[in-house]
Amino acid sequence: MFLTRSEYDRGVNTFSPEGRLFQVEYAIEAIKLGSTTVGIRTPDGVILGVEKRVPSPLLESSSVEKIMEIDAHIGCAMSGLTADARTMIDHARVTSQNHSFTYDEKIGVESVTQAVCDLALRFGESMDNESAMMSRPFGVALLIAGIDEKGPQLYHTDPSGTYTRYEAKAIGSGSEAAQSDLQDKYHKQMTLREAQHLILRVLKQVMEEKLDHHNIQLAQVTKTDGFHILSETELQELIDTMPAAPAPGAA
Amino acid sequence: MFLTRSEYDRGVNTFSPEGRLFQVEYAIEAIKLGSTTVGIRTPDGVILGVEKRVPSPLLESSSVEKIMEIDAHIGCAMSGLTADARTMIDHARVTSQNHSFTYDEKIGVESVTQAVCDLALRFGESMDNESAMMSRPFGVALLIAGIDEKGPQLYHTDPSGTYTRYEAKAIGSGSEAAQSDLQDKYHKQMTLREAQHLILRVLKQVMEEKLDHHNIQLAQVTKTDGFHILSETELQELIDTMPAAPAPGAA
Amino acid sequence: MFLTRSEYDRGVNTFSPEGRLFQVEYAIEAIKLGSTTVGIRTPDGVILGVEKRVPSPLLESSSVEKIMEIDAHIGCAMSGLTADARTMIDHARVTSQNHSFTYDEKIGVESVTQAVCDLALRFGESMDNESAMMSRPFGVALLIAGIDEKGPQLYHTDPSGTYTRYEAKAIGSGSEAAQSDLQDKYHKQMTLREAQHLILRVLKQVMEEKLDHHNIQLAQVTKTDGFHILSETELQELIDTMPAAPAPGAA
Amino acid sequence: MFLTRSEYDRGVNTFSPEGRLFQVEYAIEAIKLGSTTVGIRTPDGVILGVEKRVPSPLLESSSVEKIMEIDAHIGCAMSGLTADARTMIDHARVTSQNHSFTYDEKIGVESVTQAVCDLALRFGESMDNESAMMSRPFGVALLIAGIDEKGPQLYHTDPSGTYTRYEAKAIGSGSEAAQSDLQDKYHKQMTLREAQHLILRVLKQVMEEKLDHHNIQLAQVTKTDGFHILSETELQELIDTMPAAPAPGAA
Amino acid sequence: MFLTRSEYDRGVNTFSPEGRLFQVEYAIEAIKLGSTTVGIRTPDGVILGVEKRVPSPLLESSSVEKIMEIDAHIGCAMSGLTADARTMIDHARVTSQNHSFTYDEKIGVESVTQAVCDLALRFGESMDNESAMMSRPFGVALLIAGIDEKGPQLYHTDPSGTYTRYEAKAIGSGSEAAQSDLQDKYHKQMTLREAQHLILRVLKQVMEEKLDHHNIQLAQVTKTDGFHILSETELQELIDTMPAAPAPGAA
Amino acid sequence: MFLTRSEYDRGVNTFSPEGRLFQVEYAIEAIKLGSTTVGIRTPDGVILGVEKRVPSPLLESSSVEKIMEIDAHIGCAMSGLTADARTMIDHARVTSQNHSFTYDEKIGVESVTQAVCDLALRFGESMDNESAMMSRPFGVALLIAGIDEKGPQLYHTDPSGTYTRYEAKAIGSGSEAAQSDLQDKYHKQMTLREAQHLILRVLKQVMEEKLDHHNIQLAQVTKTDGFHILSETELQELIDTMPAAPAPGAA
Amino acid sequence: MFLTRSEYDRGVNTFSPEGRLFQVEYAIEAIKLGSTTVGIRTPDGVILGVEKRVPSPLLESSSVEKIMEIDAHIGCAMSGLTADARTMIDHARVTSQNHSFTYDEKIGVESVTQAVCDLALRFGESMDNESAMMSRPFGVALLIAGIDEKGPQLYHTDPSGTYTRYEAKAIGSGSEAAQSDLQDKYHKQMTLREAQHLILRVLKQVMEEKLDHHNIQLAQVTKTDGFHILSETELQELIDTMPAAPAPGAA
Repeated sequence: MFLTRSEYDRGVNTFSPEGRLFQVEYAIEAIKLGSTTVGIRTPDGVILGVEKRVPSPLLESSSVEKIMEIDAHIGCAMSGLTADARTMIDHARVTSQNHSFTYDEKIGVESVTQAVCDLALRFGESMDNESAMMSRPFGVALLIAGIDEKGPQLYHTDPSGTYTRYEAKAIGSGSEAAQSDLQDKYHKQMTLREAQHLILRVLKQVMEEKLDHHNIQLAQVTKTDGFHILSETELQELIDTMPAAPAPGAA
Repeated sequence: MFLTRSEYDRGVNTFSPEGRLFQVEYAIEAIKLGSTTVGIRTPDGVILGVEKRVPSPLLESSSVEKIMEIDAHIGCAMSGLTADARTMIDHARVTSQNHSFTYDEKIGVESVTQAVCDLALRFGESMDNESAMMSRPFGVALLIAGIDEKGPQLYHTDPSGTYTRYEAKAIGSGSEAAQSDLQDKYHKQMTLREAQHLILRVLKQVMEEKLDHHNIQLAQVTKTDGFHILSETELQELIDTMPAAPAPGAA
Repeated sequence: MFLTRSEYDRGVNTFSPEGRLFQVEYAIEAIKLGSTTVGIRTPDGVILGVEKRVPSPLLESSSVEKIMEIDAHIGCAMSGLTADARTMIDHARVTSQNHSFTYDEKIGVESVTQAVCDLALRFGESMDNESAMMSRPFGVALLIAGIDEKGPQLYHTDPSGTYTRYEAKAIGSGSEAAQSDLQDKYHKQMTLREAQHLILRVLKQVMEEKLDHHNIQLAQVTKTDGFHILSETELQELIDTMPAAPAPGAA
Repeated sequence: MFLTRSEYDRGVNTFSPEGRLFQVEYAIEAIKLGSTTVGIRTPDGVILGVEKRVPSPLLESSSVEKIMEIDAHIGCAMSGLTADARTMIDHARVTSQNHSFTYDEKIGVESVTQAVCDLALRFGESMDNESAMMSRPFGVALLIAGIDEKGPQLYHTDPSGTYTRYEAKAIGSGSEAAQSDLQDKYHKQMTLREAQHLILRVLKQVMEEKLDHHNIQLAQVTKTDGFHILSETELQELIDTMPAAPAPGAA
Repeated sequence: MFLTRSEYDRGVNTFSPEGRLFQVEYAIEAIKLGSTTVGIRTPDGVILGVEKRVPSPLLESSSVEKIMEIDAHIGCAMSGLTADARTMIDHARVTSQNHSFTYDEKIGVESVTQAVCDLALRFGESMDNESAMMSRPFGVALLIAGIDEKGPQLYHTDPSGTYTRYEAKAIGSGSEAAQSDLQDKYHKQMTLREAQHLILRVLKQVMEEKLDHHNIQLAQVTKTDGFHILSETELQELIDTMPAAPAPGAA
Repeated sequence: MFLTRSEYDRGVNTFSPEGRLFQVEYAIEAIKLGSTTVGIRTPDGVILGVEKRVPSPLLESSSVEKIMEIDAHIGCAMSGLTADARTMIDHARVTSQNHSFTYDEKIGVESVTQAVCDLALRFGESMDNESAMMSRPFGVALLIAGIDEKGPQLYHTDPSGTYTRYEAKAIGSGSEAAQSDLQDKYHKQMTLREAQHLILRVLKQVMEEKLDHHNIQLAQVTKTDGFHILSETELQELIDTMPAAPAPGAA
Repeated sequence: MFLTRSEYDRGVNTFSPEGRLFQVEYAIEAIKLGSTTVGIRTPDGVILGVEKRVPSPLLESSSVEKIMEIDAHIGCAMSGLTADARTMIDHARVTSQNHSFTYDEKIGVESVTQAVCDLALRFGESMDNESAMMSRPFGVALLIAGIDEKGPQLYHTDPSGTYTRYEAKAIGSGSEAAQSDLQDKYHKQMTLREAQHLILRVLKQVMEEKLDHHNIQLAQVTKTDGFHILSETELQELIDTMPAAPAPGAA
């Protein structure tokens, strides 16, 4: 099987006889090598959480950015190739600022998501100068969290340029176990606090190291404060208050 | 057989000795991996219906868009690669708006269909900046439904850039069974209601899951209201009123 | 033999050691997969006839266009890839209109044919923006019928960019039998009526289905009326009056 | 031997280890598949003759153009790919007209020949818009016949872009036998009539079919009348008066 | 394993089935062939040290530049392909100067680092004219040291376009042993002097030759003096004062 | 040996592991297939001589141009691909005329030679429109003969773009024997007459056919008359007066 | 080993799994096939010496240029492909003249060297029109000798675009033996005369032929006279005065 497959999968943008695009599928594999990333939507906002891999104690973990702000009301978490993510998020930021400047209103969360996916689809093309062109699919998946007049929203994008909205979603190397965990414990009326604790619990299960404020990062988008990355203090406080068993309402 | 074939099928745009274009044929295979989509033309309008695949209960099914508006009087349903469809439909929308602006009249349904097919044929070419260029065939088929001065019309486009008009047509993974079903039960004087129920019945047969208002989507183009995607309430009402056996006039 | 051949035939525009251009030969094979198309020149005009393949009874056969108008005095019938034909005929139409506009006279039939062949020859080149560029030979053959000051003329074009004038010519999957039939029964002084009946007879022999007004299409270019596609009524009337045996003068 | 050769001959413009350009050599093979073409220079003018292959009796043989006018005083006959020849001859015509317009004098026969060869050499290059660019060698040889202040001249061009002047030259599938025939019977003081009869005799020997005014074509360039393609009547008269044995002076 | 891998790793920018980019991984190998380079951040500044390989005593070791100034407050040390590094550092210098000129303030250390990484990511693309375009990944890693309002910082960039901040980092052929050494002996409150001596010690262990002022180079960025490459005298003085055993506070 | 070589030699411009450029070496082979060409410098001028290959007695040997004028004081003889030579010599002529027009003085012989070599080196590049671009090395060597203020000079160019000055040089299929002959018999004080006879003698030895005024061509550049191709009469007179044994002074 | 290597080394600009760029390494091999070239820096100036290979006694050795002037104060000697060197040195000359014209001061020796290396690095890129673009690495190494305000300097460049400064350096086929010779006998306070004699001695040892004023060339850059190529007389005088044993101070 592998031999015949190999004849199709090196073409960056070529269909296999079964109608598959292998390079895009392989880019999705790149994400499965990435760190685990989780997002949860609640009525009051969206929570994002990531595992940080710190190969050396001399690495300053605060410089590993897996969660980034797009606009005051939109942020995102990534899994996959860090440098690819930077290009996509730069594109998202420029799109968002252009919208604000042109229409004097905040851009919608779905609009930003679509702009990122258009960029993903167009690999191999020449583009306008504003952002970089890739000659291969982007090896990154994003969880885009934001709040607009439609309320809190959580989007998932993948290398094929497809996006979908989720109530709770996990990506990266531990995503299978994490998603099944979310499915068990998520409920629509979670408080922000419950969602934060659920993310900690989910990450804890898939991480090999003991979870502490250096090897994870959390962020939230709320109606009141917009996008905000939790400080180390806030994170530590959260870890310290994590209930031993799941909160009753999450079972 | 496969070995010699493989020498021709990776060239994006190369004839095989038998005069075949394999990359286009493989793109057609991509559609057979897609969800089932059905369209029916009646004297009063055209009905479109799609199966929605929802991999996780935490996915918000309303964000899976398989049916999209092109203009107030034209809509379409897709099967195949979602991101490719978005590019084609963006092109259709721009073509339609340009026509309205230039001639101050609604664009014809066939004109929009032809614009989409011209885009499909020209993969591998450099184009004007308005829409994206693909270096491979588009892996998507569309059912374009609309009403103009020639009445309700239903067009089918495929990756080769060919289009044809149908009275009723099914595409996607369950298309074979669905088309044979349509052939049995379709008649030219169906009411809109009968057509809606026929689509539900056809989708029900090809879907593995139990059909509900989350995993299907319906839309219609009528003379009175133009293009309209049915709300969840309308959909639920339709499912509830679905007759157990085919309507007498459809046999 | 096939193995060594295969080393040359994937190059879009490369000679084999015997001086052959395989990609052009393979494009000619694509035409042999197409529907049968027939043309006959008479002193009063030219008749074109095509077989229409209708894969489903729900397909509206009038949307399968195998015969198309180029100008008021020139039309053409095609066999091969539909979408390729559309590109060539668009080019023919623009060429024809430019000529009318520039010289205020009708374009000659040969001039239009040559414009189409120049386009066919130049695949792989960048062209002006007016029409699409192909990175492979066009997989289509045309029968171009027209009347100018040199009288009724019937031209045949193939993917190599060569054209020749015929008194009667068949292309497509049934062309071998059809051409031999034409050779037996054609005579130079046929009336238009005799030519129409001969085309019906020829198509009838090569088609698997029973010939009716849905699965064939006829058109004519006459001195009095120019190019005209026969209506379903005219076609039905013609089928009904088809003599059981060949007309005496056609033997 | 063939296996190692095959590693070099697909590169359009690559030397083999022996210093050969195989694609050009293969294009020369394409000419050997073409119809036989003969040219003879006499003190009073140049005669060109070609075999016409007529695959079907319904083909109008007058539409098979193997001899074409370049200017009033220059014409040419071809062997090889018809569509390639048309591109080369269009280039020759434009070159000739530009010269007349710019210098108000007839272009020299060698100048036209050189322009054609420059075009042949430059395959694979981008050129000015006036004529088509080829991505492979031209698969055609020309016999260019003309009269200028240097008297009657006959040039031969091949796909390598080389040209030479001949007193009598045959190209195409029967060229070997024909050239040897010419060598035996040509003499420098032939009359036009003797040259015409010699060409008929040479073509007759290499053609499988019986020679008649449908399957051959003759043209001449004379001091008095310039370039002139013989009418069917002139051709028939010539065939009828062809002496049974070679003219005495031609032995 | 190697055979199947080899099918993916020559494509400059192609994913393997496991989601890996081999050309980028191979570029990282190029760095492991380079000389050892070490950086240490202290509260008062950052120290950079490199091993210089001097293949011949006649080579003027001062012309081997492994440490270079980017701006008055930022410098960097490299390991890998020298010429690639020159291109990246030229880009960093221009970016830095443009920032100063436009905003009349010093550029941030992270901003310069990001500009270098953007360049690294975009190999294979066409860029603005300011700096060279690479058709392969850059085969170089940099340690960028600088001081801005956030204090002394040490960044590490790799060929994938990723950057991270470190307290102490070693790259190049001896990096594994050196990094483990740093991990043992580094502490956050080191003085500049202690950091200089630690770098000497680390380099001494991984170098085959005896360490002297010809085969190493040191530089520092301090709050008071900005970027400064140590003179041979300063270097000699430092070597002479190197304590025999690790400084007590570094254990 | 051949198998591993073949992996490198098809790349038009790729080094082999031994540092060789095979396509350039193969182009040099193309010259060894060419006709023998000889040049001799004397104090009074330079003599060029070529063998003409006449494949058919009907070929007009005067149309085989192996010696061509570049300017009134510079000419050249070629061996290799005729059409390639024409492109190089056209470039030399334009360069020479531009120089005359711009500076109102004759171009130097070395300047013309360098212009030709720059063209040879730049194959594979896009150039100005003045002359043709080649996508492979030129398969031709030139002997450029001229007189300027530095006296009579004879230059040799090869496909690598290298040129050198010679007192006497032979190229082409018989060059090895011819060069050794020249080495034996050339002396610096030869008269033009002696040089002409030496060239005749050298060509005679390497040619299979009997040397006559049809199958060789001679030209000279002298201080008094500039570049001049010998007429058939001059050539015949020279052949008739050729001494049986080498001239005494040439031993 | 060779087989797996061969999979990487044909890509002009591709890393092997060990992080190597084979095409650049092969270009360095091209230099090892070149003639031996030596440079020595003294307090009063720099001396360059080259071996000239004269394949035929009829070749005028003065036309073999291995040492060339860049500006009045800078010259260079080459080893490798002659035509490649010409392109690099033309670039150096233009860079130097532009500097003089723009800043009205002599360009620094290192600046010229860096300009040459930037050109070397950028093979495969499109550049400004001033100089030629190469689609492969330059197969040449240069010894650039010059004097500016920093005194006499000798730079070495290689195909990777790297440059380094040397006190004495040998390149080309005999470089290994020559460099070891230089290492033994060079001392920093050599006089120009001693350096000239040392170069003669080094070249003598690596050349197969007897050293004379035809097969070597020497040049020098001195504070007083700038760049100067020694005349044949000066060279002969130098050879005649060459001491039998090494000068005492060089031991």
